[in-house]
Amino acid sequence: MVPLRLCRQLIPHSAAASRPPFAPAAAASCSSPRPISRRLRSLPALAMAAYGTGASADRRLLFRQLFEKESSTYTYLLADVGDPDKPAVLIDPVDRTVDRDLNLIKELGLKLIYAMNTHVHADHVTGTGLIKTKLPGTKSVISKASGAKADHSVEHGDKIYFGNLFLEVRATPGHTAGCVTYVTGDSHDQPSPRMAFTGDALIIRACGRTDFQGGSSDQLYQSVHSQIFTLPKDTLLYPSHDYKGFTVTTVEEEVAYNARLTKDKETFKTIMDNLNLSYPKMIDIAVPANMVCGIQDPPSKV
Amino acid sequence: MVPLRLCRQLIPHSAAASRPPFAPAAAASCSSPRPISRRLRSLPALAMAAYGTGASADRRLLFRQLFEKESSTYTYLLADVGDPDKPAVLIDPVDRTVDRDLNLIKELGLKLIYAMNTHVHADHVTGTGLIKTKLPGTKSVISKASGAKADHSVEHGDKIYFGNLFLEVRATPGHTAGCVTYVTGDSHDQPSPRMAFTGDALIIRACGRTDFQGGSSDQLYQSVHSQIFTLPKDTLLYPSHDYKGFTVTTVEEEVAYNARLTKDKETFKTIMDNLNLSYPKMIDIAVPANMVCGIQDPPSKV
Repeated sequence: MVPLRLCRQLIPHSAAASRPPFAPAAAASCSSPRPISRRLRSLPALAMAAYGTGASADRRLLFRQLFEKESSTYTYLLADVGDPDKPAVLIDPVDRTVDRDLNLIKELGLKLIYAMNTHVHADHVTGTGLIKTKLPGTKSVISKASGAKADHSVEHGDKIYFGNLFLEVRATPGHTAGCVTYVTGDSHDQPSPRMAFTGDALIIRACGRTDFQGGSSDQLYQSVHSQIFTLPKDTLLYPSHDYKGFTVTTVEEEVAYNARLTKDKETFKTIMDNLNLSYPKMIDIAVPANMVCGIQDPPSKV
Repeated sequence: MVPLRLCRQLIPHSAAASRPPFAPAAAASCSSPRPISRRLRSLPALAMAAYGTGASADRRLLFRQLFEKESSTYTYLLADVGDPDKPAVLIDPVDRTVDRDLNLIKELGLKLIYAMNTHVHADHVTGTGLIKTKLPGTKSVISKASGAKADHSVEHGDKIYFGNLFLEVRATPGHTAGCVTYVTGDSHDQPSPRMAFTGDALIIRACGRTDFQGGSSDQLYQSVHSQIFTLPKDTLLYPSHDYKGFTVTTVEEEVAYNARLTKDKETFKTIMDNLNLSYPKMIDIAVPANMVCGIQDPPSKV
């Protein structure tokens, strides 16, 4: 049995006080057997080092940045290792590297509870579906605004708990209509400095394109300036992609040096209108697959 | 003028008490004009977030992990941003990505004092030489045991200071005869958890080959077990290379899961003797270039 409190970790902002969020899914999760999760618990429970952030949160956060070379995608693993169950979330997993990621999760003795996407990716197939077939207890998460199917559809202001740590959902549309940024909490018991997983809304010194999937340069400019640049200046920004070998940036750096988003809005829109990018080679495969991220049946049942 | 204390940062273990280390080079550095350094100081001095380590050291450490795709090499930037000069070191820079690295250093308002190598690389040309032509104030560092030329030849036990932070040199031969691991200090005013830059002595779940450049599987086994696995279990291990998209590991993880180094010594030697790796395609270019890392004259004078 999964402890009841695990069923209350994903709390939508608007509903937290009035009703148990995601009640049906959560109830199902609580009553169903989870053999994989039990197997994970039998592994050596390493007292892993916190990584990536500072003094607070009592080193509860285990953090790993993982890279997929073909699409230059970063996947992020976060876990609360101060919780006996070591609950974990995986942000933007890629189908090709699911085995690597799940093996690491197993070695670290973590329990993966959420496989999350920042948006419906056009350049790779999300690992969410494959993860759910391999670790059936895991729930998929994506924004409601994306229109994609997942176990949990989140909205701006929702908090996604894993143990005593949480990620706050910020709507940052513009690259796609449903893009969100996941941001660590701002209270004393959360990691410091804060960390924001920006998807393609902001990439290091640049940003995602805005010419498909409901993209809008006007909206992207507004999203980054209102939801990302307003975070504390030492907030660590982790993008979905990097093509130059950078791993992280900060709000302060991007406010000073982002090649596009430091411009005024009209200049930014002109830049974005004139990128002349080619049609993404994976888009016709990736988008349909990612619109049903993680709720398709396991391959054996198809 | 460079403040005098900057001239005492690199302190060889055996000589610290009795004589000023690297006296001639240091004296020259102190008296010569450093236009590049002054230019760096005129940039906005961003109060950068510490990154990568925990509660201590008062967030003095700025840390960046950088990746070079062709050789899958990691370069590491560390700086003491608590020091007004923001002195920085770069570990294992690659020639192809020097412009990227120096631009980042400039943007962050850092003063690069040391360009260091963990060993004489066989798979890429070090960026050290190019850095010295572009930032003449920078000094190159490599182990004395490597036989390579550099401004500073370090030995086991030496401490390399940048501001109030330092890296300790640990001899970890076996991949090459001159491999060293650079480890952050263990006192309360140094980053916690500790961080070790292991070069090719230990890579995540594996290790460097031992079949050229004075390599020895016997010696590598001894090096890792005596100098790396004896570090605190939460020590973050950063390798020179990764080919699977991992960015970091810990002592505890490698002691539990390293596919080679968890075996007994004889099994390890058998594994290493039977890797049947091809001849490194870059070795005949890289090794001669790296044996004079950073002390060659600038191209205009050649």
